[in-house]
Amino acid sequence: MTDKLTQAERDADLPALFDSGWAQVEGRDAITKTFVFKNFIQAFGWMTQVALWAEKWVHHPEWSNVYKTVEVTLTTHDAGGLSALDVKLAKKMDALSS
Amino acid sequence: MTDKLTQAERDADLPALFDSGWAQVEGRDAITKTFVFKNFIQAFGWMTQVALWAEKWVHHPEWSNVYKTVEVTLTTHDAGGLSALDVKLAKKMDALSS
Repeated sequence: MTDKLTQAERDADLPALFDSGWAQVEGRDAITKTFVFKNFIQAFGWMTQVALWAEKWVHHPEWSNVYKTVEVTLTTHDAGGLSALDVKLAKKMDALSS
Repeated sequence: MTDKLTQAERDADLPALFDSGWAQVEGRDAITKTFVFKNFIQAFGWMTQVALWAEKWVHHPEWSNVYKTVEVTLTTHDAGGLSALDVKLAKKMDALSS
């Protein structure tokens, strides 16, 4: 069981993610970002790297892919909202895409 | 450029796909199927196999993944609807998931 972010943690962690292109999902305690790559190989290659981290951390994204675009939503179902795992995975996704 | 399926080709190819769980997308000349696996490793492993075929055939799915579930939509943007490539990829997806 992972705890939901406290308000202090939100204030500390979310602004940097919002600056890097993440956004709050409307009506849901979740964050979303659209990653656009050069082509499908780059897009799916990135997804594969993310998938390995996701499985290692036992925390999986909701994501969709159309050719070179990947839309991601992160939330922690067990916690009923954003947890530290979402922040960690979002940062990893950013790092792997740059 | 890939040609849209003729009516004769639809009559020949689509019924078997519908029998295996594919369905026509409402208001769009596309087919969709939801694949459910045992866990994320199985789901993403299957996606990875499909991704290699998709890239090889230069024909990519629209798909989304949440943990062990993968929702796929196939259509051929160049053709403005279903083409033989969609039938080929749909059959490959079925074969790889069984």
